[in-house]
Amino acid sequence: MKTQAKKTIAIDMDGVIADVEPQLIKYYEQQYGVTTTLEAIQGLSHAEAFPLDAITKASLNMPGFFRDLPLMPGAIEAVKKLMEDYEVYIVSAATEFPLSLFEKLEWLKEHFPFISWRNVVLCGDKSIINTDYMIDDHCKNLDFCPGKAIMFNAHHNKHEHQHVRVHNWDEVLELFENERSKSELSI
Amino acid sequence: MKTQAKKTIAIDMDGVIADVEPQLIKYYEQQYGVTTTLEAIQGLSHAEAFPLDAITKASLNMPGFFRDLPLMPGAIEAVKKLMEDYEVYIVSAATEFPLSLFEKLEWLKEHFPFISWRNVVLCGDKSIINTDYMIDDHCKNLDFCPGKAIMFNAHHNKHEHQHVRVHNWDEVLELFENERSKSELSI
Repeated sequence: MKTQAKKTIAIDMDGVIADVEPQLIKYYEQQYGVTTTLEAIQGLSHAEAFPLDAITKASLNMPGFFRDLPLMPGAIEAVKKLMEDYEVYIVSAATEFPLSLFEKLEWLKEHFPFISWRNVVLCGDKSIINTDYMIDDHCKNLDFCPGKAIMFNAHHNKHEHQHVRVHNWDEVLELFENERSKSELSI
Repeated sequence: MKTQAKKTIAIDMDGVIADVEPQLIKYYEQQYGVTTTLEAIQGLSHAEAFPLDAITKASLNMPGFFRDLPLMPGAIEAVKKLMEDYEVYIVSAATEFPLSLFEKLEWLKEHFPFISWRNVVLCGDKSIINTDYMIDDHCKNLDFCPGKAIMFNAHHNKHEHQHVRVHNWDEVLELFENERSKSELSI
């Protein structure tokens, strides 16, 4: 049997393995005294959902914002499972927010200690990232992916329909289970 | 005339735009009281050149190490020049050294303020980076490059001969001048 290199998956952080929406709501309220809810921001862009923060993105530049983001439910178990068959890279658009870089590594070390620093990419745009799959919540990232693009559902991407959509990590695992069945059929 | 997307170049930081060798020698002397010279380390690997630091890589984890690296001569002007015709990305293997991330961005902001955060990639291995050219001082990075790999001369790569070698930024510009002549001939 020929040994083949594992196929690669680029997995985004914010909105995919880290649940950024409740944190945005919390910081927005603390900074601007305006309360919103998960329900209220569905279908809105970031700028529409958090208009007072749209220009400065001050919330995202506050120390601690990225360090204690809640986990997306099921992410740890699902990533572990995917790593059995795929080479998984965490690819996060982070260089816009310099304070986030160290915090993101610390967050990963806490929640995903089984992911090596070798497999972490903190970048600006993702246009030079080349993986067989990319799981992300932004079209601006997925549109460049030379492999299969998978859109993770988020409040701001409800109206984007050019990529396969998953709503949670169970659906990600289902999708990869189907990919495996397809590739077994084609052997 | 058809407008084509610019070709892309991934440019490494340490040993390519940042002159890491004198800083290594300085930190090694400060930490271990052992003096070495640029001449003495030519042809040696990092572990051979700095044996006491080989396992812990303590020097590279010290605050400030990456923040005040000297510039590689001619790098600023050459990168500016390349940006006229190419989409330039700074791609640095940095996630092994968490403290380096913020310092590298600050260093870039000081010396290369004309490079956007969108074009900065701080990663572990570079195997999923897809650019038309890669300028780097390590085979472990260049070997994966799907485009043209260009090895920037360093003490530790003297014995590696599988990639085109440049010794300084003037030679980089010459190489790209030749690339341009070739592509004009082929039109």
